Amino acid sequence: MDSTPGPAPDHSGQPGQPGPSLDDPEYRAAVIDLLGVLAYGELSAFVRLAADAALAPQIGAQAQLAGMAVAEFRHFTRLRDRLGELGVDPDEAMQPFVAPINAFHESTAPADWLEGLTKAYVGDGVGVDFYREVARFLDEQTQALVLEVLADTGHSAFVVATVREAISVDPRVAGRLALWGRRLMGEMLSQAQRTAAERDALSNLLVGGMGGGGVPGFDLAEVGRMFARLTEQHTRRMRALGLSA
Amino acid sequence: MDSTPGPAPDHSGQPGQPGPSLDDPEYRAAVIDLLGVLAYGELSAFVRLAADAALAPQIGAQAQLAGMAVAEFRHFTRLRDRLGELGVDPDEAMQPFVAPINAFHESTAPADWLEGLTKAYVGDGVGVDFYREVARFLDEQTQALVLEVLADTGHSAFVVATVREAISVDPRVAGRLALWGRRLMGEMLSQAQRTAAERDALSNLLVGGMGGGGVPGFDLAEVGRMFARLTEQHTRRMRALGLSA
Repeated sequence: MDSTPGPAPDHSGQPGQPGPSLDDPEYRAAVIDLLGVLAYGELSAFVRLAADAALAPQIGAQAQLAGMAVAEFRHFTRLRDRLGELGVDPDEAMQPFVAPINAFHESTAPADWLEGLTKAYVGDGVGVDFYREVARFLDEQTQALVLEVLADTGHSAFVVATVREAISVDPRVAGRLALWGRRLMGEMLSQAQRTAAERDALSNLLVGGMGGGGVPGFDLAEVGRMFARLTEQHTRRMRALGLSA
Repeated sequence: MDSTPGPAPDHSGQPGQPGPSLDDPEYRAAVIDLLGVLAYGELSAFVRLAADAALAPQIGAQAQLAGMAVAEFRHFTRLRDRLGELGVDPDEAMQPFVAPINAFHESTAPADWLEGLTKAYVGDGVGVDFYREVARFLDEQTQALVLEVLADTGHSAFVVATVREAISVDPRVAGRLALWGRRLMGEMLSQAQRTAAERDALSNLLVGGMGGGGVPGFDLAEVGRMFARLTEQHTRRMRALGLSA
């Protein structure tokens, strides 16, 4: 993934309207949910990526995947520390998201090295897109953190080169990994949709229905449109990998 | 583990004798072996610890084990970079140690969270003892790196507290983990002895039979004595955990 910043930050909302503030209890609760889901997402991405590194056929490749995992852990500590600064117990903030994120990982355990790499790439990519989507609607301080965590991802050139090389050696790999990519995205959306339905404030925040700008009130259709945009970007990324999504 | 430095560095050898030098091809080969085995040991410790973090019952505990894993990865990158500085391909230097280290991990996959924690603690402790044993016989630059990597370990207070707490809740845990600790040490020594028997220069270096100080020439008995010291220290550490070793 490139790390070009997404749409220009827009926390000023409609003209004359103030941006969202952490003094607003509903916005604050949504931000805590957001930091909680991101933090547990990063921690579990760390654990799973690191475990998948054991599948690497060469030491150099193992070290590459391990390095991706360590980057996720750095993000986790930044998000956890911010929760602490907000006076929140980070474990409590993460708790509501443990079950859906673990369920995602359990239903998508890679069978081999190439599936592990593809999962890292897809997860990283969707993560970056999601960070960009949500950054627009945040107060300045939360936004700065989210953009910092976004800017730090990468490593995808290694994945793209390795997967393309594997496909050139054995073209049948492409069909299998294309299916795998679809399955990953399907499971991710299914868990995300389930979570969104249960966390009104968070869903509201994600689609700009809070603070400045956006339509106030929970809007499942708007959440659905955000997921559709994430899916389109995923499709483009799979093509870069040489796969039909 | 405390991080008190071990015996005073002694790279001057016997009075009047120069310390070991990387210009000596045999010593240089042994140092490359040493950095190779340490580097792959750290990389695979990273991967296994991170994977074991998935077994944690609470998020906080998972983050603790993940943090231990990340410390191992930092050590890995330092050792790998040093191999590069020496003009060596790090992957090639690690290659001879992949099979024995993987065999160790495959034969000691933890069945649950407490076994995972105990493995992290035992591995970290034996690692620190080993770094101390070997640091004495190294040239200054290699020694500085080995001591730096040693000083950076830790986190064991968390393991000791967690295991002791688990034993106080269910005393039967102590017997099971004591057996587990013995098995870990047995497997570690068995793989180490096999490796030492195949890598003469490295074994020589480990017991001071190279450069300054120590008896020149390969001495399997001295290697055995070093392993005996590591075992004694392991026994003391298991006692700190509330286990008979």
